Amino acid sequence: MREELFAVGDVPVALWAPETPDENRPVILLGHGGGFHKTAPEMVALATRLVAEGGFTVVCPDVPGHGDRPVDEELNRIATANQTRIEAGADIATILAEFHALVALTTVREWRSVLDFVGARRAGYRGVSLGCGLGVPFVAAEPRVRAAVLGLGSGLASREAAAAITAPVEFLLQWDDERVPREHALALFDAFGSAGKTLHANPGKHGDLPDHEIDSTIRFFRRHL
Amino acid sequence: MREELFAVGDVPVALWAPETPDENRPVILLGHGGGFHKTAPEMVALATRLVAEGGFTVVCPDVPGHGDRPVDEELNRIATANQTRIEAGADIATILAEFHALVALTTVREWRSVLDFVGARRAGYRGVSLGCGLGVPFVAAEPRVRAAVLGLGSGLASREAAAAITAPVEFLLQWDDERVPREHALALFDAFGSAGKTLHANPGKHGDLPDHEIDSTIRFFRRHL
Repeated sequence: MREELFAVGDVPVALWAPETPDENRPVILLGHGGGFHKTAPEMVALATRLVAEGGFTVVCPDVPGHGDRPVDEELNRIATANQTRIEAGADIATILAEFHALVALTTVREWRSVLDFVGARRAGYRGVSLGCGLGVPFVAAEPRVRAAVLGLGSGLASREAAAAITAPVEFLLQWDDERVPREHALALFDAFGSAGKTLHANPGKHGDLPDHEIDSTIRFFRRHL
Repeated sequence: MREELFAVGDVPVALWAPETPDENRPVILLGHGGGFHKTAPEMVALATRLVAEGGFTVVCPDVPGHGDRPVDEELNRIATANQTRIEAGADIATILAEFHALVALTTVREWRSVLDFVGARRAGYRGVSLGCGLGVPFVAAEPRVRAAVLGLGSGLASREAAAAITAPVEFLLQWDDERVPREHALALFDAFGSAGKTLHANPGKHGDLPDHEIDSTIRFFRRHL
């Protein structure tokens, strides 16, 4: 496997791929979680398996304000204001949904440029938590994405974008998620426009996704890409 | 593959197994759906794949009043009375749950005898719809069952039995099930006592289980048996 680090415009990107080049290889774009970055251990572990077992090219861009990107003063200002609103009793789920929608205005554009840069013709997307909030509008907007694994996200974020998605979706829900109310997660699954959507729910908290879902993710992308 | 038809006491049973005998082979017991029987095409197709791809021995007993069993006057009387209650406005889900609990008093005993008869040491169970209503109390009562695929069933039936199940459960839910209200199905998943439970939900009606769930069922049993 080869690993490359490069930038697409202002966006630092990590790429993992099999040694032998193949321009017809599908590309999986990974959206990392909040507070993580493109080469967090979870991303590298997932990318390694997608390359080794799926034969895919995998790319992971840093989200604004994360990883090797500069501090984003505007996002920080909004995040601080949000924290104040939450302490004043505002609904966390609603505020998080607004924040994801705001950041997605940037990431949808950036991630499409990343697919252009690597010459992707067919792509998959995988993102949970923040990666779901940003992924829903991306998958809705980008016709090269033919399959998506999303999860740990809420129907409060971009319900309309979810309805516009027609690609197959495998959606991961943690039954005891302390951050996303179960009914909000079920509402997001309900909203997806895809005929081929499937929901996988497992016991455990937000951070406790079981390993067998990684196996399932790889099979899902192999089936659809 | 060999196929055998035999009786255990009053219970007609179909068995499918690889040609070479192996007394350590796990046994999967299939519970058929309401109105079906042990050699319905769905059962034969599923058994064939479990034998060929999983290397399991598979047995399917006829439920009372189904297949090669005589008409059960008592069950028929109750079913007719239930129909009258439904026409008078009683809740179908409640009546069905009561009926399943009643039939399970017989099938739990019969199915344990079937496992005894074939010398099963480790077993799996797979049943949806009626096969779930009867399967929940069976899996709860039978320690040889180490993994169960259940689905299209409701939390109104045997919630207490569900809570007593500790074996891993893969639970199938049809998102647009016209017979089982979604919240009743989610309540059943919620009730399972298993640490290793997983929910797979797909769009479609009661009878529309997608083929990829058969693949998943085989992998699930291979993982746990």
